[in-house]
Amino acid sequence: MVSRRALLRQIATGVLVLFAVAAARAQSDPLLSWNDTVTKQAIVEFVQATTDNTKPTFVPPEARIATFDQDGTLWVEHPIYSQVIYCLDRVPALVAEKPMLKEVEPFKTILTGDREKIANLPLSELEKVLAATLSGMSVDEFKAEVQKWIASAKDPRWKRPYTDLAYQPMKEVLGYLRDNGYKTYIVTGGGQDFVRVYAEAVYGIPPEQVVGTAGGTSFSYDKDGKPFLTKEPKLLLNDNNAGKPEGIHLVIGRQPIIAFGNSTGDKEMLEYTEAGDGPRLSVLVLHDDAEREYAYGPAQGLPDTKVGTFTQELYDEAMTNGWLVISMKNDWRKIFQEQ
Amino acid sequence: MVSRRALLRQIATGVLVLFAVAAARAQSDPLLSWNDTVTKQAIVEFVQATTDNTKPTFVPPEARIATFDQDGTLWVEHPIYSQVIYCLDRVPALVAEKPMLKEVEPFKTILTGDREKIANLPLSELEKVLAATLSGMSVDEFKAEVQKWIASAKDPRWKRPYTDLAYQPMKEVLGYLRDNGYKTYIVTGGGQDFVRVYAEAVYGIPPEQVVGTAGGTSFSYDKDGKPFLTKEPKLLLNDNNAGKPEGIHLVIGRQPIIAFGNSTGDKEMLEYTEAGDGPRLSVLVLHDDAEREYAYGPAQGLPDTKVGTFTQELYDEAMTNGWLVISMKNDWRKIFQEQ
Repeated sequence: MVSRRALLRQIATGVLVLFAVAAARAQSDPLLSWNDTVTKQAIVEFVQATTDNTKPTFVPPEARIATFDQDGTLWVEHPIYSQVIYCLDRVPALVAEKPMLKEVEPFKTILTGDREKIANLPLSELEKVLAATLSGMSVDEFKAEVQKWIASAKDPRWKRPYTDLAYQPMKEVLGYLRDNGYKTYIVTGGGQDFVRVYAEAVYGIPPEQVVGTAGGTSFSYDKDGKPFLTKEPKLLLNDNNAGKPEGIHLVIGRQPIIAFGNSTGDKEMLEYTEAGDGPRLSVLVLHDDAEREYAYGPAQGLPDTKVGTFTQELYDEAMTNGWLVISMKNDWRKIFQEQ
Repeated sequence: MVSRRALLRQIATGVLVLFAVAAARAQSDPLLSWNDTVTKQAIVEFVQATTDNTKPTFVPPEARIATFDQDGTLWVEHPIYSQVIYCLDRVPALVAEKPMLKEVEPFKTILTGDREKIANLPLSELEKVLAATLSGMSVDEFKAEVQKWIASAKDPRWKRPYTDLAYQPMKEVLGYLRDNGYKTYIVTGGGQDFVRVYAEAVYGIPPEQVVGTAGGTSFSYDKDGKPFLTKEPKLLLNDNNAGKPEGIHLVIGRQPIIAFGNSTGDKEMLEYTEAGDGPRLSVLVLHDDAEREYAYGPAQGLPDTKVGTFTQELYDEAMTNGWLVISMKNDWRKIFQEQ
């Protein structure tokens, strides 16, 4: 007969084994926030195929480049890009420095704080705000301003810092790829200098692996003879659409093996990725989860949008070419990291 | 009495020990082609100081960025930059494609092969040759052409491929820095796409770590719908002088900890490096070895030159700021790798 003590010991051992199995499973699954769908399976199979040197699909480590759009692919882009909020939030400080702007449009409208009126500003007016808040200061001053904003600003819907709104499943993909020898890059229509400020902390991506819309800088000396760079309102790279492969060539100089996007602005990057020899993986994130995030397309009958448009034409191109389309609703077990 | 056999065994052991000691010394000295001068010592001490985490001078691995000019710093630049030779060598093929150029200057003069007349072409005429041979083709076509040339062209003085004329002591510095967690970058006034073709094979530097003078590209599709990039004659970055820190910001986004150059075109890069907080190392290569390589300045009374000018003013700035100046004659045990 088994003693009570021995029985307890057996139960305790059994519980420990169960914990160990669960922990091992958690450890062995790098994509824990993904449901076990064909999408997840296809990503894992591609990584296995390109990192197994016994297979003809093997890709040598130095060629393992993976590029990721940011807005709508790595973090929330609705109702409006976070960087645009930053620019609008900077207007009061800008007007304090240059009081004459107070009576000048579009600054006058922005100072009213009337969201509806601000949303209706024409693009050309908005561009004036971007130019005024993203250039004309030193690179270091800009970085300090963005750091301050990123640390304090909150998204009004989730009441969480914007950097909390990075998609947990995508952060897992980034880590998974890096663990398999891939070099992960952000290739964003957003400002290169803006994204570099937090990309390391949020995504584990260092400044030199952020490609984005970039303006020129100019080198000069301060009164003590110390050199510094000033951000100029001169566009060097518009890192959207055809600008994405052009930016990839400029900064990386190799075609990616893997590319992730979510909108028509990423189409050319995905096509350029596929144009390379050997195995390639192109993936699009479809925002079909109005409850947990947002729903927009207009692909697949989703509501149309001006921010992160994903047309049916792009969806059809993805299907024809065998690109993966992630359904946020079905493929992702959770959207954000818990608070 | 020791037997003859035992004696032989002792001698053999002694010889093996001597070999082992010599091999260990070779292994333990990563800068074997350097003489044991203060310059070598200063480089080693800086690397030790920035990689020892018990010291206040420690630099975390992710911040360890080292930038190197190429022409005159990593390989021979006299009597003229290798890339210019490439462009001149391309003229016959260019004229074969576009026969009307045969009667047009400066192509007409270049086709004569008269070195003196070619050397006297004004810079504005030379720029036409650079534009015609460095743009107007696809990125892949350009790469294939450069690969072909690099594999066959030879420097007339040494009768060796240009890539053999990389400085062995500098290749050792690159390897030594990488072994100590530094990410090594080329920051060159030469063409970014040109240098990327051979930088990995010659210096162990991948394409994404080559910053250079860069033109725009344009994305389009061939008749089968396959996308490709065309090199456009539009300058995005002139990576000389102030363009070097501007290019470093554009592509790397961090200030280097270490920078190597050899001419006034590198001055701003070195100043920008020094402007960062914490330990910084700036180094200039002085070409004072007419016998083993070339001698030019005009710093320190060396002959003046239009290619790779190192002024006395720059030399004085280096002395004032505590930058290292490498004397090729005194600091380098050898210049090139043996054939």
